[in-house]
Amino acid sequence: MDDRTQLPIVGMIGGGQLARMTHQAAIAVGQSLRVLAASADDSAAVVASDVRIGDHDDPAALADFADGCEVITFDHEHVPQERIHELIKAGHTVRPGPHALHYAQDKLAMRRRLAELDLPMPRWAAVDTVDDLTDFGLPCVVKTATGGYDGKGVFMVDDPAQIAPMLDDGVRLLAEERVPLVRELAVQIARSPSGEIRVYPVVETVQRDGICTEVIAPAPGLSADRRAEAARIAERIAVELDVTGMLAVELFDTGDRLLVNELAMRAHNSGHWTIEGTVTSQFEQHLRAVLDYPLGEVTMVAPVVVMANVLGGQPGGPRLDERVQRLFAADPAARIHLYGKAVRPGRKIGHVTVAGEDVDELRERARRAAELLRDGH
Amino acid sequence: MDDRTQLPIVGMIGGGQLARMTHQAAIAVGQSLRVLAASADDSAAVVASDVRIGDHDDPAALADFADGCEVITFDHEHVPQERIHELIKAGHTVRPGPHALHYAQDKLAMRRRLAELDLPMPRWAAVDTVDDLTDFGLPCVVKTATGGYDGKGVFMVDDPAQIAPMLDDGVRLLAEERVPLVRELAVQIARSPSGEIRVYPVVETVQRDGICTEVIAPAPGLSADRRAEAARIAERIAVELDVTGMLAVELFDTGDRLLVNELAMRAHNSGHWTIEGTVTSQFEQHLRAVLDYPLGEVTMVAPVVVMANVLGGQPGGPRLDERVQRLFAADPAARIHLYGKAVRPGRKIGHVTVAGEDVDELRERARRAAELLRDGH
Repeated sequence: MDDRTQLPIVGMIGGGQLARMTHQAAIAVGQSLRVLAASADDSAAVVASDVRIGDHDDPAALADFADGCEVITFDHEHVPQERIHELIKAGHTVRPGPHALHYAQDKLAMRRRLAELDLPMPRWAAVDTVDDLTDFGLPCVVKTATGGYDGKGVFMVDDPAQIAPMLDDGVRLLAEERVPLVRELAVQIARSPSGEIRVYPVVETVQRDGICTEVIAPAPGLSADRRAEAARIAERIAVELDVTGMLAVELFDTGDRLLVNELAMRAHNSGHWTIEGTVTSQFEQHLRAVLDYPLGEVTMVAPVVVMANVLGGQPGGPRLDERVQRLFAADPAARIHLYGKAVRPGRKIGHVTVAGEDVDELRERARRAAELLRDGH
Repeated sequence: MDDRTQLPIVGMIGGGQLARMTHQAAIAVGQSLRVLAASADDSAAVVASDVRIGDHDDPAALADFADGCEVITFDHEHVPQERIHELIKAGHTVRPGPHALHYAQDKLAMRRRLAELDLPMPRWAAVDTVDDLTDFGLPCVVKTATGGYDGKGVFMVDDPAQIAPMLDDGVRLLAEERVPLVRELAVQIARSPSGEIRVYPVVETVQRDGICTEVIAPAPGLSADRRAEAARIAERIAVELDVTGMLAVELFDTGDRLLVNELAMRAHNSGHWTIEGTVTSQFEQHLRAVLDYPLGEVTMVAPVVVMANVLGGQPGGPRLDERVQRLFAADPAARIHLYGKAVRPGRKIGHVTVAGEDVDELRERARRAAELLRDGH
């Protein structure tokens, strides 16, 4: 093809469902997405055309992958800072940059930085010894500073002895108060290197066993003041941490206050509803933002949108193919997104989105659709 | 992957933009799309993961491609009937079947069949000799029975001598009256082998030089009676011709009557607006229909949707990358679909969709967006 008509290649490290859905978005806007996947079976690797197989911690694999990419970005937070710095030293553009990504990779660094910014958070403390935890007060939540996701790396602790083995292994920990919650919220925000910002509507997220099971957009009954506050918090974090691309800010709503729970600097499960629910999905927006293109409109295209995650069910039961057909028959307006993953009980294998006007009806439909895809009945 | 979680492979013959957009739809519903492309540069070949390169008229290439596909379908009408019958003889399922596809491949056969069904059409006649044309009456429209698309194979004829060279070459021709039009319309309809049918809202299509430049959904000011009539015509054709998958019926609106112009048994340019405009796009619907899955809801998700084709502009001017950025800056809510094709003047290289409430404003925005992508200004 004439190189005047060739759009830049965006390189995404990680081949999970986020890369898979980003590839769909890239096809529309004419971008080529190159994926560095750990395995040829990865969710994105089975559908993308430009796939490199390699370890995200292997300098040679990264160098080979990065060659020819206009910008490098991420499907996950697991790329070590050292690897990112090597890519930059070799002349590559990486977004978000390592200085920003650090705060999504390390919860201790994130808490310290947000404390400097005086942003609202649960009470927290670094835990280097069992005594630190006793001083903090029990029961509390203990988190590993790095490596946690989907409820992994998060522990409800009543007895300091529970954490001794991790401390012995040199795992860096922090303690956080167990905040009495009304509910959890999340905000997606996009920021480009030029400083353009778009804040998506605030959503409510419903978790079970530490895994997000349901997202309701917009968050029902959230006051205009609280919405503005959530947007302000997200915008402040995006700007002060110099985030480029998508940022997801997960919040606790205590009824009185909003507290920052977690950050993710990429497309996020709490933003999957934007594919059908807003003019510009988080996946296209991330591409636009990391390329420093003008950002897309983020208004909703339906009054209410509900997303439910599809978790892998127990072995047995009807084939996935059969389950899809049962769902299509039961709800012809449900929008499904399957990730092409092998089913394991409790593993996220897809999601379902429904749009309409009545939040209760939509929640029921989304739950039912996710159940049908999980169990076939 | 566990084969219980593997969805069937759909094989699509042809690697153009329809296959490209079908791949996007297939990713969401977890299907694997296998594409038989003529070249590795084809629109779908550059983004799909399971691509075979081969000629759609090569029995060996087709047999190799078809092996392992649950069902074979089409991005275009150019596969000879003989090849399709060979695939079926080898045990493959092909949808639409050759008996139906014949009427989309051969305009003479289509006119004869629709005449048997007493469906409304322009006056027409087979033209085997120059005298046939004189008898039909001039001026008129002459079409080649096979091989035409996007205005190719369609001629405005004043003088019978114009067609003599084609008749000498053995080209099969038909004549059609030049119908005084108010406008052109199109209906998308999906039909599954089980007989389920979904009719999309009737749209207005705007052509220039035989190429569709704009589609307005729903067709402005079309009466409920006329909408029902268009749907009845489309449904009758789908059922009587035993179409499976998507069928596009292009219609002339003479003010008094609707007349059938052309048929396409696949996703069609006049249905690209369904990606953003309806709950289930024509691309996902085609997959569902050829797999005999329950069909998806086809209601609109915005009051008015306008699509404009992006044609290749003159050489020179800003790079496509720059033109995309200018459009994104000018209209953050425009949805773009680029086909990854080399630009040639007048060639369809993508399309733009806008949704909202005011048809005039949306038409202006869509035209402006397509211009920006064509020329950069």
